[in-house]
Amino acid sequence: MTRPDPGAIVQPTLRARRLGLHTQHQPVVLMRTDCHVCLAEGLAGRPQVLLSAAGREVRAALFQVEGNSLLGPDEAALSETAWEMLGVTEGAPIAVTHAPALESLASVRSRIYGHRLNAAAFASIVGDVATARYTDVHLAAFLTASAVLPLDEEETIDLTAAMIGVGDRLSWDAPVVVDKHCVGGLPGNRTTPLVVAIVAANGLIMPKTSSRAITSPAGTADTMETLAPVDLDIAALKRVVEQEGGCIVWGGAIHLSPADDKFVRIERELDIDTEGQLIASVLSKKIAAGSTHVVIDIPVGPTAKVRSEENARHLAERMRMVAERSGLEARCLLTDGTQPVGRGIGPALEARDLLAVLRNAPGAPDDLRRRAASLAGVALEIGGKSEPGKGAALALKTLADGRAWTKFQAICEAQGGMRAPPLAAQTHPIVADRAGRVVHIDNRKLARLAKLAGAPDVKAAGIFMEARLGQDVERGQPLLHVHAETAGELAYALDYAVAAGDIIRVET
Amino acid sequence: MTRPDPGAIVQPTLRARRLGLHTQHQPVVLMRTDCHVCLAEGLAGRPQVLLSAAGREVRAALFQVEGNSLLGPDEAALSETAWEMLGVTEGAPIAVTHAPALESLASVRSRIYGHRLNAAAFASIVGDVATARYTDVHLAAFLTASAVLPLDEEETIDLTAAMIGVGDRLSWDAPVVVDKHCVGGLPGNRTTPLVVAIVAANGLIMPKTSSRAITSPAGTADTMETLAPVDLDIAALKRVVEQEGGCIVWGGAIHLSPADDKFVRIERELDIDTEGQLIASVLSKKIAAGSTHVVIDIPVGPTAKVRSEENARHLAERMRMVAERSGLEARCLLTDGTQPVGRGIGPALEARDLLAVLRNAPGAPDDLRRRAASLAGVALEIGGKSEPGKGAALALKTLADGRAWTKFQAICEAQGGMRAPPLAAQTHPIVADRAGRVVHIDNRKLARLAKLAGAPDVKAAGIFMEARLGQDVERGQPLLHVHAETAGELAYALDYAVAAGDIIRVET
Repeated sequence: MTRPDPGAIVQPTLRARRLGLHTQHQPVVLMRTDCHVCLAEGLAGRPQVLLSAAGREVRAALFQVEGNSLLGPDEAALSETAWEMLGVTEGAPIAVTHAPALESLASVRSRIYGHRLNAAAFASIVGDVATARYTDVHLAAFLTASAVLPLDEEETIDLTAAMIGVGDRLSWDAPVVVDKHCVGGLPGNRTTPLVVAIVAANGLIMPKTSSRAITSPAGTADTMETLAPVDLDIAALKRVVEQEGGCIVWGGAIHLSPADDKFVRIERELDIDTEGQLIASVLSKKIAAGSTHVVIDIPVGPTAKVRSEENARHLAERMRMVAERSGLEARCLLTDGTQPVGRGIGPALEARDLLAVLRNAPGAPDDLRRRAASLAGVALEIGGKSEPGKGAALALKTLADGRAWTKFQAICEAQGGMRAPPLAAQTHPIVADRAGRVVHIDNRKLARLAKLAGAPDVKAAGIFMEARLGQDVERGQPLLHVHAETAGELAYALDYAVAAGDIIRVET
Repeated sequence: MTRPDPGAIVQPTLRARRLGLHTQHQPVVLMRTDCHVCLAEGLAGRPQVLLSAAGREVRAALFQVEGNSLLGPDEAALSETAWEMLGVTEGAPIAVTHAPALESLASVRSRIYGHRLNAAAFASIVGDVATARYTDVHLAAFLTASAVLPLDEEETIDLTAAMIGVGDRLSWDAPVVVDKHCVGGLPGNRTTPLVVAIVAANGLIMPKTSSRAITSPAGTADTMETLAPVDLDIAALKRVVEQEGGCIVWGGAIHLSPADDKFVRIERELDIDTEGQLIASVLSKKIAAGSTHVVIDIPVGPTAKVRSEENARHLAERMRMVAERSGLEARCLLTDGTQPVGRGIGPALEARDLLAVLRNAPGAPDDLRRRAASLAGVALEIGGKSEPGKGAALALKTLADGRAWTKFQAICEAQGGMRAPPLAAQTHPIVADRAGRVVHIDNRKLARLAKLAGAPDVKAAGIFMEARLGQDVERGQPLLHVHAETAGELAYALDYAVAAGDIIRVET
């Protein structure tokens, strides 16, 4: 078949307008139904359009506006996400055209129909995801398709490589760069800032980038943010690590894995967290951060993310294999996941636990201290700072003699200045309805309760634990305290506490 | 555990404002970041909120607005979808609170993790979908999870029952109410209006509700809309059928299957169409329409939706079984799906084919005529209007003697008045690049081409076919003409025609 030259097509343009509109991170453009571009281009009913300005292109969801109250007929109003991506100024001309078909969606459809994908397909999908070409519907379909039929080892390796491929990558002038990760699911298990402080205090390099919460009440970045700025760019991160040997910053701000940030937002909305995605997410960020070794904490317990030792061993082996194939050495530790670690759940409350341990305060949670020391110990052994089997003792000593606390303060100052975590305006106890012994603590319900109270978005919100497994309690004795910023959120969380049944089970 | 009474919680309200904003059918609320409700309720970062006004509730996506250019601090601006669902007036008080957790999402998550669902789970999911409680992300996840691990027969039955349960249901004072459906995938296969006219002209009841296009360039409702109004409510539909014996209306306007409309929008964005969803969608609408029998057209061809006779037989058997378990008798016809039917592809172009057949115009497409007659023939036999094996002949006679044309015009008038389908402003031929014989026609590429030209949203857009399989053509002879409304859309479609390779293959 032949076709003629369609001739020079005039780019239909509108004037850019900034609305200050936050659209759940989606690029969105608002245009009048009767604007000349909608009419000339036949855009009515199209879900997406292509915006172009000064060499940049953005695919945006098209919202149409009837009537003249909101927009002029020659205006294209952009959501904040679209505005930042397109990098325009108020009134600048924007060309609006049909969004071309995304070839990578054929691969997503293929996986929806149950076929496995190859490296090229993952590279193409992740490339389009990282540049925000996918709608939330596309993202949700890809993530779901990769969960129902779980990614196999080859697919996980390919997804990991694809995710590294689209981000920036750091390099360090050191033979060993250690990293640490916890697969999560255990409230309050906030060892990372302690591990970084201990490891850096002993002279190793640990450029730690952390995520915000996905399905939990707090991510390390959320917690650390109550103590120091975490939104550092790559230059600032390098400066902090070169000066102090370690950092604890938010990974999302430095684009080590731009696709991952998009995936995480949707996983959060769906409240899912799958093995393949988890491995690719974790390893891609470690490799991009320039790490050579990573210590991985896998808490195991009936209400933790990993529920059985069998599942934990499978995850550990898959993680180790994918890491090896990706040029990274992973060491996995299976740890106790039967109850929360420390006393706080939620960003600020967990930060208070960290400070207590670092300062050797009386009553500082010993379980948190020992966990951090065992993870830091492995890192110290890997890095040759300790003989095999003696790393944990060195780590505990580094905490006890105040060197970790000194290093942590230095890191916070280098990241922009240390600050005190906030306290919630509203607190309310949940008390034992009988005398007896604490026999079960439901980590999932605790996490839900803390989230309903406002964590992680409300930094001071969460739970302060009083009860531990095996403890004897009196009737009316507080088992935990809910912390919230507003009466509405407190009531919302307490409603759930009543409906949820035993969060902490006491048996006579 | 015990908890105190949280006390009377004051409902935080804002004033309703209508923006005339079309947000791809999602309920959306815009609120100022600094409004007292956002601050008091801690809504920052929440994806959804619950809007309440005068006894109605709507879950809406929360878009926050910075600065004062768009909204007052006491205003909640609603998208058109949210506005209609909430049924408020300008300035009315709206309470905005946290959206409670949706219990049915636990079932969606369960299916994402590979578990099958029971009737209660489908009822709960479909109930939340029908009342627009799901975000697009939730919808995409449910549909994808139901595709990767395909719905089994029991699940399809349960989904069908759930979809009937949430919609209105018609009943007719007749022992036999026939319906007709085509599973699609074959461009131009627009037999429904002909079948309804033939069947109703012979005295049977056929209350036909049709969908708009899901992944094709035209649905029956899209095509019919170029000839008469199709957005009838239930009262109007009943009046038309009681008067004329048949109708051809859009199912979405009468809420026979409100959940299906939501699913279809997402399936369209993902360009997927799965067996389980297809069966539940089709059968739920037939049963809700009060039908006792349905004739189902399954075109089979290498580039049709159903590619092999084996797949077609599987689909037919599953369709028949699920129908039987749902109290409906289904008769499936496997038909030729190797090339388009008729000459037009796209709403208005297909409508022109219909008119040619009904009017017995010279050059009217005979393939379309014969297909419609064979489907109508089965319906006439089921309804006792013809002896077995003689239905198709009666149907052809009903077309030939003008009774079908008379009935069709009467139905159009009863639906609100007959009109002429529009003609496109832009047309362009695609010609043979060599002399030879037409050996292959790619239905999928044709459909894509027609959609890129603007179909189905642009009614006049699409393709007018010149070539048929087996035909001899000269070099430069038109194989088809692309019809579009704008030069931009025409160029967009022609770009695809070049890139797509052989849409119609000519071999020397």
